[in-house]
Amino acid sequence: MNIILNPERKEWNELLKRSALKTDSIQDSVCEILEHIKKEGDKAVKEYEEKFDKARISSLAVSQEEFDNAEKEVSEELKEAIHIALKNITTFHASQKFEGKKITTSPGVTCWQKAVAIEKVGLYVPGGTAPLFSTVLMLATPARIAGCKEIILCTPPNKEGKIHPAILDAAKAAGVSKICQAGGVQALGAMAYGTESIPKVFKIFGPGNQYVTAAKQQVSLHDVAIDMPAGPSEVAVLADETANPAFVAADLLSQAEHGIDSQAILITVSKSLLEAVSEEIKKQLAVLPRKEIAECSLKNSRLILVNQMNDAIDMINQYAPEHLIIETKDYSAVAEKIINAGSVFLGSYSPESAGDYASGTNHTLPTNGYAKAYSGISLDSFIRKITFQEVTRKGIENIGNAIKIMAANEHLDAHKNAISIRLNSKNN
Amino acid sequence: MNIILNPERKEWNELLKRSALKTDSIQDSVCEILEHIKKEGDKAVKEYEEKFDKARISSLAVSQEEFDNAEKEVSEELKEAIHIALKNITTFHASQKFEGKKITTSPGVTCWQKAVAIEKVGLYVPGGTAPLFSTVLMLATPARIAGCKEIILCTPPNKEGKIHPAILDAAKAAGVSKICQAGGVQALGAMAYGTESIPKVFKIFGPGNQYVTAAKQQVSLHDVAIDMPAGPSEVAVLADETANPAFVAADLLSQAEHGIDSQAILITVSKSLLEAVSEEIKKQLAVLPRKEIAECSLKNSRLILVNQMNDAIDMINQYAPEHLIIETKDYSAVAEKIINAGSVFLGSYSPESAGDYASGTNHTLPTNGYAKAYSGISLDSFIRKITFQEVTRKGIENIGNAIKIMAANEHLDAHKNAISIRLNSKNN
Repeated sequence: MNIILNPERKEWNELLKRSALKTDSIQDSVCEILEHIKKEGDKAVKEYEEKFDKARISSLAVSQEEFDNAEKEVSEELKEAIHIALKNITTFHASQKFEGKKITTSPGVTCWQKAVAIEKVGLYVPGGTAPLFSTVLMLATPARIAGCKEIILCTPPNKEGKIHPAILDAAKAAGVSKICQAGGVQALGAMAYGTESIPKVFKIFGPGNQYVTAAKQQVSLHDVAIDMPAGPSEVAVLADETANPAFVAADLLSQAEHGIDSQAILITVSKSLLEAVSEEIKKQLAVLPRKEIAECSLKNSRLILVNQMNDAIDMINQYAPEHLIIETKDYSAVAEKIINAGSVFLGSYSPESAGDYASGTNHTLPTNGYAKAYSGISLDSFIRKITFQEVTRKGIENIGNAIKIMAANEHLDAHKNAISIRLNSKNN
Repeated sequence: MNIILNPERKEWNELLKRSALKTDSIQDSVCEILEHIKKEGDKAVKEYEEKFDKARISSLAVSQEEFDNAEKEVSEELKEAIHIALKNITTFHASQKFEGKKITTSPGVTCWQKAVAIEKVGLYVPGGTAPLFSTVLMLATPARIAGCKEIILCTPPNKEGKIHPAILDAAKAAGVSKICQAGGVQALGAMAYGTESIPKVFKIFGPGNQYVTAAKQQVSLHDVAIDMPAGPSEVAVLADETANPAFVAADLLSQAEHGIDSQAILITVSKSLLEAVSEEIKKQLAVLPRKEIAECSLKNSRLILVNQMNDAIDMINQYAPEHLIIETKDYSAVAEKIINAGSVFLGSYSPESAGDYASGTNHTLPTNGYAKAYSGISLDSFIRKITFQEVTRKGIENIGNAIKIMAANEHLDAHKNAISIRLNSKNN
């Protein structure tokens, strides 16, 4: 771990740098795959599945039978855990439902917003060594609550052309309409353009490596909306002398094990805590199964001592962490001053793991400082707020003159005329 | 006008095509300008202002004196109209304030969202023949209500290096912090990267031509969030035999006068209305100052007759118009079935002009079918919802086991350990 004591403010920028996903050099090859998917549909998706995932697939869509049978292959304890997580995620996201109020802005002028679900959404869940069923829950649950009519999930199959049953079980529990065996750029292209088996969607959600990120960037320019830009995962822990160093170390390590480009940062006002955390990390790391990954990502990580709590808060707001854990005596007061973060965990018993899996909050969050401008996934991500207005004859008499004057000053006479013709009409 | 009678469904896709802003061929030249701005800052911005806007500028930032003096140069009637519009826009957007509720998802597990304003936002208002002060109101008002600390406005100066006083007056009234004389790609680059005079912002809003659009696309990939993708403006009018053909024609024309690539579509179940609207358009067009622009854009426009109201509604939802005006007997019932639109105007006295200027709704809306996935600008566009969670000892005892099981099944042992270490700790 890199230990930095009392850095000057002018050093902060350098100190808080992260490794971003590099996509510039792969844009051309990603573009080529996307073009091929657009032209050839299913045929091209299958070719790339064979090439990249070594999987020969006859049908891209998972059959209803396979979907239904998955739960038999999942252990009872995992099913029960998924059930608990799903219940909490549902409770929290259902509480986010938006009810627009009708607002009279002037007599006879009524305006309101109405939440309407995005009809067709695409969820991407990456493959890899472990089945990321938690991401299925986090993306599909708000989609279902929002009322999306088609919820398409793409995830790469294993070499036997199968999807892990835990993914299928979570997808069924959370309300996915259709699962397709496709990964990487080909999955993104299929959902952006539509193929014979994979429906075109209007918005794509989910994490991925730099190829998936590049594909999301490209399809988002013209064809489909995306959830948010991507980057490696990260946590900042803000702690004082009251924090438990073993807890802090465990939280930093649970970020560090995600991937070699993950980043874990401790910002503290207590030198003794910093030292104790550093010792604890060594101890806990030694017995960690993903030790090699964590060791790698700890090179991007930092333990930083600052003079006072306000400096720590400023540093956090400058960093804008995806996850922020606050383990201080007065964590509620500190939290009031946080303006840039994705998700904030308060107190000694709120580890990031809770939000990653089962507390109810979403784990799809803005990385790479994007928390300065983006929110994490919530029910909002799956709806649009359409505005409505109803203006009565009396209403247009009230505001019509102002509109005419403004339109004339913007040299838009037909806009003005749309008002005049109504004001001059017989009252009916 | 193109008149289409009872098209078959398979023809709809072709029928509802729009002209998109073409940006592919200009991406390289836009990239070059952006790189130059990134390296040279103010100096480069001034060079491009001289090159593209023929304006020699000594100071990019508008002085406080100029800002303050602007209102003297604006007519009393326009100031009064701006005041009325501002009041209504403020009322509607202030009603959108979000108050998060604390939700207990399991005993001891509390989750909530908190709305926090984006600290620094950049507003872009294009130049051209008329001063678009209405866009200033629409972008700056929600930014101010949200609580954005820095609201930067960039707009190109005229050849004398001046900004129209109506823009300055509206900016002052709406709460803009700083105005800079910069237009086009150079303005976007300056706000994305920051220069000596123009602060870097976290999110950029506002319309523009294909160069501005290309610049927004490029800076959004790495450096800054943007409001939404752009396209030419458009309206769909859905009308039956009860509609007033003169009103409908006026509404179609007020869209058609925007620009040569604008699109205005009438979808109706009444052949007699269609014919009457067609006649009215000819009549009203003849006396329109922007006749030449409207004539051009009417070539992209259509009057479409369908068999029944449900077909009309399906066609609207397939088109996903930026603006939708519903002039039918039972417009409220029809509106219930609209799922894809930016802003909807109900009844005979709700022309698009009302929402463009003064009813209170925002006029920055998703074009080009993006309404299928995007909302228009609202207070939400200027905030992030940060999630918070507080888990107590009891809470982690409740959900901890589920988290451990899920983490183990995703092969993330450090995640599991962050729970175990807490469950195994002495109760404190």
